[in-house]
Amino acid sequence: MNTFGTNFRITTFGESHGAAVGVVVDGCPPGMALDENDIQPLLDRRRPGTSSLVSPRQERDRIGILSGVFEGKTTGTPIAMMVKNEGAHPHDYEELRTLFRPGHADFTYQQKYGIRDYRGGGRSSGRETIGRVAAGAIAMKYLATKGIAVSGRIVSVHGRTGAGEIEAEILAAKNAGDSVGGTAEIVATGCPAGLGDPVFGKLDAAIAGAMMGIGAVKGVEIGDGFAVAGRFGSENNDPISKDGFLSNHAGGILGGISSGQDIIVCIAVKPTSSIAKPQRTVDIHGNDAEITVKGRHDPCIVPRIIPVAEAMLALVLIDAVLEQAKYRSKGE
Amino acid sequence: MNTFGTNFRITTFGESHGAAVGVVVDGCPPGMALDENDIQPLLDRRRPGTSSLVSPRQERDRIGILSGVFEGKTTGTPIAMMVKNEGAHPHDYEELRTLFRPGHADFTYQQKYGIRDYRGGGRSSGRETIGRVAAGAIAMKYLATKGIAVSGRIVSVHGRTGAGEIEAEILAAKNAGDSVGGTAEIVATGCPAGLGDPVFGKLDAAIAGAMMGIGAVKGVEIGDGFAVAGRFGSENNDPISKDGFLSNHAGGILGGISSGQDIIVCIAVKPTSSIAKPQRTVDIHGNDAEITVKGRHDPCIVPRIIPVAEAMLALVLIDAVLEQAKYRSKGE
Amino acid sequence: MNTFGTNFRITTFGESHGAAVGVVVDGCPPGMALDENDIQPLLDRRRPGTSSLVSPRQERDRIGILSGVFEGKTTGTPIAMMVKNEGAHPHDYEELRTLFRPGHADFTYQQKYGIRDYRGGGRSSGRETIGRVAAGAIAMKYLATKGIAVSGRIVSVHGRTGAGEIEAEILAAKNAGDSVGGTAEIVATGCPAGLGDPVFGKLDAAIAGAMMGIGAVKGVEIGDGFAVAGRFGSENNDPISKDGFLSNHAGGILGGISSGQDIIVCIAVKPTSSIAKPQRTVDIHGNDAEITVKGRHDPCIVPRIIPVAEAMLALVLIDAVLEQAKYRSKGE
Amino acid sequence: MNTFGTNFRITTFGESHGAAVGVVVDGCPPGMALDENDIQPLLDRRRPGTSSLVSPRQERDRIGILSGVFEGKTTGTPIAMMVKNEGAHPHDYEELRTLFRPGHADFTYQQKYGIRDYRGGGRSSGRETIGRVAAGAIAMKYLATKGIAVSGRIVSVHGRTGAGEIEAEILAAKNAGDSVGGTAEIVATGCPAGLGDPVFGKLDAAIAGAMMGIGAVKGVEIGDGFAVAGRFGSENNDPISKDGFLSNHAGGILGGISSGQDIIVCIAVKPTSSIAKPQRTVDIHGNDAEITVKGRHDPCIVPRIIPVAEAMLALVLIDAVLEQAKYRSKGE
Repeated sequence: MNTFGTNFRITTFGESHGAAVGVVVDGCPPGMALDENDIQPLLDRRRPGTSSLVSPRQERDRIGILSGVFEGKTTGTPIAMMVKNEGAHPHDYEELRTLFRPGHADFTYQQKYGIRDYRGGGRSSGRETIGRVAAGAIAMKYLATKGIAVSGRIVSVHGRTGAGEIEAEILAAKNAGDSVGGTAEIVATGCPAGLGDPVFGKLDAAIAGAMMGIGAVKGVEIGDGFAVAGRFGSENNDPISKDGFLSNHAGGILGGISSGQDIIVCIAVKPTSSIAKPQRTVDIHGNDAEITVKGRHDPCIVPRIIPVAEAMLALVLIDAVLEQAKYRSKGE
Repeated sequence: MNTFGTNFRITTFGESHGAAVGVVVDGCPPGMALDENDIQPLLDRRRPGTSSLVSPRQERDRIGILSGVFEGKTTGTPIAMMVKNEGAHPHDYEELRTLFRPGHADFTYQQKYGIRDYRGGGRSSGRETIGRVAAGAIAMKYLATKGIAVSGRIVSVHGRTGAGEIEAEILAAKNAGDSVGGTAEIVATGCPAGLGDPVFGKLDAAIAGAMMGIGAVKGVEIGDGFAVAGRFGSENNDPISKDGFLSNHAGGILGGISSGQDIIVCIAVKPTSSIAKPQRTVDIHGNDAEITVKGRHDPCIVPRIIPVAEAMLALVLIDAVLEQAKYRSKGE
Repeated sequence: MNTFGTNFRITTFGESHGAAVGVVVDGCPPGMALDENDIQPLLDRRRPGTSSLVSPRQERDRIGILSGVFEGKTTGTPIAMMVKNEGAHPHDYEELRTLFRPGHADFTYQQKYGIRDYRGGGRSSGRETIGRVAAGAIAMKYLATKGIAVSGRIVSVHGRTGAGEIEAEILAAKNAGDSVGGTAEIVATGCPAGLGDPVFGKLDAAIAGAMMGIGAVKGVEIGDGFAVAGRFGSENNDPISKDGFLSNHAGGILGGISSGQDIIVCIAVKPTSSIAKPQRTVDIHGNDAEITVKGRHDPCIVPRIIPVAEAMLALVLIDAVLEQAKYRSKGE
Repeated sequence: MNTFGTNFRITTFGESHGAAVGVVVDGCPPGMALDENDIQPLLDRRRPGTSSLVSPRQERDRIGILSGVFEGKTTGTPIAMMVKNEGAHPHDYEELRTLFRPGHADFTYQQKYGIRDYRGGGRSSGRETIGRVAAGAIAMKYLATKGIAVSGRIVSVHGRTGAGEIEAEILAAKNAGDSVGGTAEIVATGCPAGLGDPVFGKLDAAIAGAMMGIGAVKGVEIGDGFAVAGRFGSENNDPISKDGFLSNHAGGILGGISSGQDIIVCIAVKPTSSIAKPQRTVDIHGNDAEITVKGRHDPCIVPRIIPVAEAMLALVLIDAVLEQAKYRSKGE
C-alpha cells in the first residue's frame, strides 16, 4: 500500500497538513557515507516557491535523518527521515470540507474510506512525494557507486517544446487561472545488462508501475513507446553488431531485462487539477455545486514532477541491482 | 518474479518447448462453480492457427485442472492448471542455439542467467501467457458475479484503423516477410468506486505494470493518456454533477482509486520481433552474423495480445476487489 | 526485514541511542477513534524504571502520532508514531566499541554488516520493541471491537512459579550481578473460528514466528506444546460435542486455523544476556578478552517481555481477521 | 498462503485425492545440474509403506520435473514438479463427508471456507508436504555447494529415547489402535555467520514459523529452548574465545543472525490424530456423533516428519543465503 520495493524498500507516511511527512528506507546497503546534505538538494528541486513557473508557497522542507546512520555511515538498519509540515494556509482549504474538487482524489478517497483528511488533499497531496524523493536521493547515491545515473527533463508543455515556448505556455495558463499538461523524459545511463526479472518482475513493468503511480501521470512509454505501433518489425528491431546495439528503439530493455543501453522512459502529465476557474461539482451530500479552487497552485506540475520521476526510476533500479546481486552470487 | 497479485495470486511456469506450461492460482474465493469449460474459450482466443492473420501453428492447448476444485466448486485451495506442450518444430529453432534474435530476450536472458533454453524463446515465449489467460478466465468469472466485465479490441495496426485496412496491413506485412505493430484498448465496465490503494498501490499503477509486463507492449495509457499533455486543466478535469461524472478523460481512476466510471486502458504493441527478413546480429561468441528467423510467426501480435491484456486487467481488478473487502469489513 | 504483517503492516525504525525510535502502521481500518492515550498505557507497561525487579533506567517514552489520524479518527492512511530517545548514559557503552558481549547480537551484526551502532545494542536493543508495542496497542483496540482480547502473564522464573518465589529469584539474581530466565503464557480470547490460512499461512506458524522474533525468546509452544510428545492420540485429541470442544490441548488452532477456542501460547525466555559478572569474550580484532557489562540492566526480562508478546499476538490476529474479511466477502 | 520464501520461493498445490500434488519453485539459481534423481530419494524417505512403523499405504510418489531445467541444468526459471495421486481407497473416507475428525482440520476448514474436500483431509493432508520435500531437495543440493548440510533424527517417542524403546512404543500404540507423539531434532552444519535479518526477519523466527507450519508440530525450540528458562545468565551465555564460541546454548543464532555454529532446532510432534479408537465428535449439522477413523494411518508421524522438517529448514536457509548475497554485494 504505502510501501514500494522489495530489496530497497521504502514506506512513506504523512498528510499535507498533518504534523510531518516522511519515509522509512529499509534495505539500504551498509557502510555508505550519508547525511542530510546528500538528500536536501533533490528535495529542493521538488520544492515550490522557487520560480514564477511553480506554486509560490514557501516550504522549507528541511529533511532530518532519525535512524540508520551511525558516525556518518549507513548501518543496514532502517533509515527514517522526516520533514515537519509548515507554511499551511488552512483557510484556503475550508471549502474542501464539503466539496469534491474535479480531477482530484477527494471523491474516490471518500468512497473508499468513508473519511478523508480534506486539508490540502491530505494523503493524496503532492507533499507525500517528499518521502519518495528523499529515498530516491539515497538510491541515487548508491547507484552512482555502480556507475548508474538518472536524469530527467521536460520534453513538452501544452504541445510546445522549446524552453521559451514552454515558459510562455505556463505563464499564460497561470494568468488565465488555468493549468497545462506536458511530457517529460527520464533516462538512466550506465545500467549493466541483466537487470529485471522475466514474466511479472520485468524491469519495464516495474518502471511503468512506478511512473503511473505518480499523481498526474496518465501515460508511460519505454523507448519509442506508441511510435512502435506504426512501424514494421524490420524498422523497429534494434540490430546487434560486435560493437553493440546499432539503435535503441527498445529503450534499453528486451524481454523485461536491461540490455546495457540507456533506459529511456517518457511520461504524460495531466494539467494540474487545481484551477482558479469555476467548475461543476457536487458536495458530500451529492448536491450540484460550483467550485473555484483557492490556494497557491502550480499552473504546470511537469517541472516539479521531474525529481519525483527521477526518484522513482532510481528506486526501481536499485531494487533490481540488489536483486541481481543474488544471481551474481548464484553464478559464482 | 513469476508470481502476480496479492490476494488472488498466480504463479506461472513452463517453457515454450518444455513438457508443459501452466499456472497455480492461489486465493480464489471458495464455493464458485468452475470447470475447464470456463477457461478453454479464452485460451482458444489466444491460440495460434485460427485465421490467416496469425501464426499457422497448430496447438490444441487443452487446459486441465489439477487441484483446488471439488465436486465442481472451488474450495479456496490452490488451483493448478496445465497445458501439455505439443506441435513444436524443434528444427526451426536450431539456429537459435548460437544466434541472438534482434528484438527478443535471447541476449538479455543470456546476460542475466548465463544459460537459456533457446528453443522457441523458452520462458520468454508467448506460450507463458497461457497461464495468465487461464488464471484470468477464473478472475473474469468471479468478477462477473460482481457485475464487472472486461473486454478488449484492436484500435489500430500500422496506423490504420478500419477492420478492412487492418487486415490488409497484416497480410501485406506477412507477404513481405515482415511484421507490423498496433494499438489496443481494454475496458472494464461495472467497477465500483473505491478500488485501488493510494500512493504505491494505485489501481492505475498496477494496471500499467500489468500491461507493460506483457511481451511486446511498449506504452500504456489510462483514459486519454498522452493527449492530456496538450490540454488545459479546464478542459481535462471531469466535472461532476448529481447524476455523476460529466466526462471520463481520467479513464475511471482518480488519485489511483476507481471512480465508478469505465476503466479505459490503451496499449502500444510493437511489431513482432520474429521476421523472415535478414537482420544483423551477433552469435553467442560476439561475432557479427546475419539471421533470418524461421518458423511460423505472427505477422502482427495485436489480435492475440487482446485476451492476454484482458486477463491481466481482470487479475488486477480481482486483486483490488478482494482487497477492498477488507475495507468493507473495517467500515462495518 | 523491518516490516511485519500483510494486511495490518508495521515497519519499525530506530536505534537505542539514535534520535528516535518509532513505527509506521499501514492498513489500519479507517474511522476508528484513536489518540496517544490509547497507546501510552501499553508502552508504560514495557518501560523500565517501574519497580525494583526491572532496570532502573528512567525513560519517559512519550509516544507521538505524526500522521494517519484526522479529527480524532484513523483515515486508513499510514499512522507514523515516534518516541524521542533520552536518558542515555553513553559512557556505559564505550567499552562496547571494541568488545562483543556474550549472548548479544554484537558479534553477528558485525559479521553481517561489517558495521554496527554499538551504543546500547543499537538496532538490536530492546528499545526497538517500542514500535511493536505502539502498533500492538492499535491492533488491540481494533480487535476489542470484534470481541477479541489478548493478555499475558509470567508462568515461571528460574523454575519457580509463585509470585513471591518469582520476586525472590529475580532479586537474588540482581544482587548476584546475574540474571534469570523464565516462561510466559499469552492467551487470546474471543477469536472466531476460521482465522489463519492453510499450509504456509497457518495461524500457529505466524504466531511461532512472531514470538521467536522477540529477542530472548528461545522456545514457543501452542496449546500443550512439548507435553503432547508424551501422549497417546486418544488422550491428546480434543473431542467435540454439540456444545463445543470438550478440551483444548490444541490451544485453539487446528490445521493452522482457529477453532473458536482460546488461543494459548507459551514462550521460553532466556536470562538477560547483560550481566555484571565477568565473562570470556573477544575484541573486534579477535583477541581474547574479559567483559563485565555495565549499565542498568534487567535481572529478568520476562516481566517486560509480556507487553511485547501481547503486541505480537495482537498483530498476528489483526492480520488474520482482516485477511478473513476477504473470505467473508467471497462467501457472500 | 500457499507460497513460502522470498528469494527461493515455493508454491505447493494439490489435495490428497485430487489429480496430483506438486510445487513450483521460483528463484532457483541458474546453472545447477538437476534431474529427478536429485529429488526422489528425499521423497522416498517421507513415503508411507516402507516399514511396520509407518502407514502401510503404497504410494509410489514418482516426481516429474515439468519446467525450469534445460539440458540437465536449472535455467533460473520456475521449476514445476508434480506427483500424480494414486493408491487411494476412497471408501475409507466416505464417513468424512459428514463427520469432523477430532484433532484434524475438518472442522476449521469447514468454518473458514464453507466447503472442503473431505477425501483424506484434502488440502490439509500430509500429502501436501510432497511439494515441500521436493523443493527442499533442490535447496539442499544448492546448500551443499556452500558447505551447508541439514539432517534430522528422532529424539523421543512417548517419552522414550532409545531406538528399541521407540520401536516398541510405536508398535504398542499401533496394536492398540492408538497413536503416540514424540520429538525430533534438526541440525544444520556449515552455515556461515551473518544469515538472517534483524527484527522481523530473524533466522530463528523464520525457522520457528517454518517448523510450526508443519502439521502435528506443537512446539519449537532453538538451541537449548525451554531449558534456558531455568538458568542464570552466567550459565546460559555462550562465552567467546579467539578460537570461537566455547558452548552453543544459543543453537547457532544470536540476535536473529547465524553465528557460524551449528543451528539446532527441536520440535514437538503430537500423536497422529487419526486413531482407530472411537471418539466423540459432531456431524456437519452439529449433532453429537462417534467416529472411528478408518484407513491405513501412521501410529506415529515422527519418522515421516523428519524429511519434511529437514526440507523446511533447508528452505529457510537457502532463502537467507540468497538474501545475504545482496549484502556481500553491498559490502564489496
